[in-house]
Amino acid sequence: MSLESIKYAPGRLEILDQLLLPVQSKYLEVKGVEDGWKVINKMQVRGAPAIAIVGCLSLAVEIFGENFETKKSLRQEIEGKLNYLVSARPTAVNMKIAADELIGLANELTKDENVTTEAMKTRFLKATEDMLQKDIADNKAIGTYGAKAILERFTKEAPVRVLTHCNTGSLATAGYGTALGVVRKLHELKLLEHVYCTETRPYNQGARLTAYELVHEKLPATLVLDSMVAALLRAKHIAAVVVGADRVAANGDTANKIGTYQIAVVAKHHDVPFYVAAPLTSIDLQIPSGDHIIIEERPDREMTHVGINCWNPAFDVTPASLITGIITEIGVLTPQHLKEVISAM
Amino acid sequence: MSLESIKYAPGRLEILDQLLLPVQSKYLEVKGVEDGWKVINKMQVRGAPAIAIVGCLSLAVEIFGENFETKKSLRQEIEGKLNYLVSARPTAVNMKIAADELIGLANELTKDENVTTEAMKTRFLKATEDMLQKDIADNKAIGTYGAKAILERFTKEAPVRVLTHCNTGSLATAGYGTALGVVRKLHELKLLEHVYCTETRPYNQGARLTAYELVHEKLPATLVLDSMVAALLRAKHIAAVVVGADRVAANGDTANKIGTYQIAVVAKHHDVPFYVAAPLTSIDLQIPSGDHIIIEERPDREMTHVGINCWNPAFDVTPASLITGIITEIGVLTPQHLKEVISAM
Repeated sequence: MSLESIKYAPGRLEILDQLLLPVQSKYLEVKGVEDGWKVINKMQVRGAPAIAIVGCLSLAVEIFGENFETKKSLRQEIEGKLNYLVSARPTAVNMKIAADELIGLANELTKDENVTTEAMKTRFLKATEDMLQKDIADNKAIGTYGAKAILERFTKEAPVRVLTHCNTGSLATAGYGTALGVVRKLHELKLLEHVYCTETRPYNQGARLTAYELVHEKLPATLVLDSMVAALLRAKHIAAVVVGADRVAANGDTANKIGTYQIAVVAKHHDVPFYVAAPLTSIDLQIPSGDHIIIEERPDREMTHVGINCWNPAFDVTPASLITGIITEIGVLTPQHLKEVISAM
Repeated sequence: MSLESIKYAPGRLEILDQLLLPVQSKYLEVKGVEDGWKVINKMQVRGAPAIAIVGCLSLAVEIFGENFETKKSLRQEIEGKLNYLVSARPTAVNMKIAADELIGLANELTKDENVTTEAMKTRFLKATEDMLQKDIADNKAIGTYGAKAILERFTKEAPVRVLTHCNTGSLATAGYGTALGVVRKLHELKLLEHVYCTETRPYNQGARLTAYELVHEKLPATLVLDSMVAALLRAKHIAAVVVGADRVAANGDTANKIGTYQIAVVAKHHDVPFYVAAPLTSIDLQIPSGDHIIIEERPDREMTHVGINCWNPAFDVTPASLITGIITEIGVLTPQHLKEVISAM
């Protein structure tokens, strides 16, 4: 079964400590907002969707056992604690978006005179729990659309080989995964011959996390170095590359883990389709193109220690022209039609 | 000054222990063939030209202090010990080629009745010392031709930025280097604005050895991850890529450290010229194309430890179509004219 990075039941939350992987698989109980802030800040949970969900659920377990005398006191608790959670990793926009939504809901419920304090608490808990369910449902839809897109390029249905980069699986999301969700779906359909994953330097998310998930779930998988993608596409018959996204601009330009752009160039050279798998929340129509996405540059010391300068951008931008399709929970969109389709929703 | 990986004076040989780099710069004395075999076998010296030179010089220092009663006994000593040295790393063809040449010379001198035992020893020692000088002279010629080729693409002479892969410098050769010799020459001409070197996974020769050389010699340099080449070529104005070669086929297809082919694809996409720097001894006209070059695949454990399969080829082949020129000690040859030019020599 799929690796559970977040275990939740009303009043109880546990997360798989990602700092200990792959050496140790240890769950940490998150008893409330204080614990939630810590596991996010220390990066024991990572991946934009996972951070937002763990943050909101940490508030849910805290509120679960408490009694509130008035709706106003509940509203104050929600707003204060959510803003505190946002401060754990200020660059993770998903937590901020989720906090704003839940604060908006708390304000509405406070104003609605037909809602009791107890009903407000129940509605609020349900809203946080729905985030977990929606993320998994969205990922499953992404998996289904992605698998279909990859398979329908072939006249005969036969198992395919795919390549992925970084970690976009159960460990980065509420479960199932985006790009790795597509791979998982191919496997469920018995149409995955093999998945190759890259090491993903400098943090080795591929070698540490994706490899761990693939071994755990017994998918036929092989690890390659980041420098081997061209040799791989030349030597083995790879049906498609599928990667995740940190942010997609309105024209389809996609910011993702460093190395993604290089893989897209190499895929183009070898005529291998290149897919980006991402929920609609990652598509930002406010950003006209990749030129407007600011790339985080990280400290030199992550790379070496001999005293040489290092250039260490954490992400790169893949131009839309290199992207075959963007796999979302509503279907596979071409970069050209992104704006049109989403604006019409 | 250029880093000395091999220090030699008649009767005395020292090598820089490359296993301790970059943490420690320690020279090891090589007192004879026994020591020579060990430093080659343990990879304290590496790089095809360096292995052959250290092997032959270890015999030279051993013979230097010995007296031989007859030319026959000297000849036996030479043949026996050289064959023993070849066994230290059987895949390093340069040592085998050098051994065959020196054994041929010993046979000739034995037959020549005008040569005394003492003269034969002197001639033999000179032949081994000449190998060291020739390698450095060839590399300097490669540096000069390469720098000229890179610069002459520009109408105005101005400092350029270049990218290199793996280690092809003083540490892999008798001194100066092949691809890194080209970089060094640009720097001597005060026309090197910046050199970027790749980490070169899985052994990190770029991060450990090239970075060490560049810092030691105060060249303006920056280390990048193997996955960053495309982002680098897109963001910075790179005048050329220059890499070394393990073997060049008659049609120009080039086997080199894994990742070279990927860089060539990425260079082509960005219209950046891609040069291979190699001495003529690396060009094998017996091999019609890269398809006939056997690629060493190395053990999984070099890459990871989570139990996933790994694909770990040590080299890849760059098709001639992606190579702008092959920089040799006789000039820059295009892949198409390789056979013609060398055959006519």
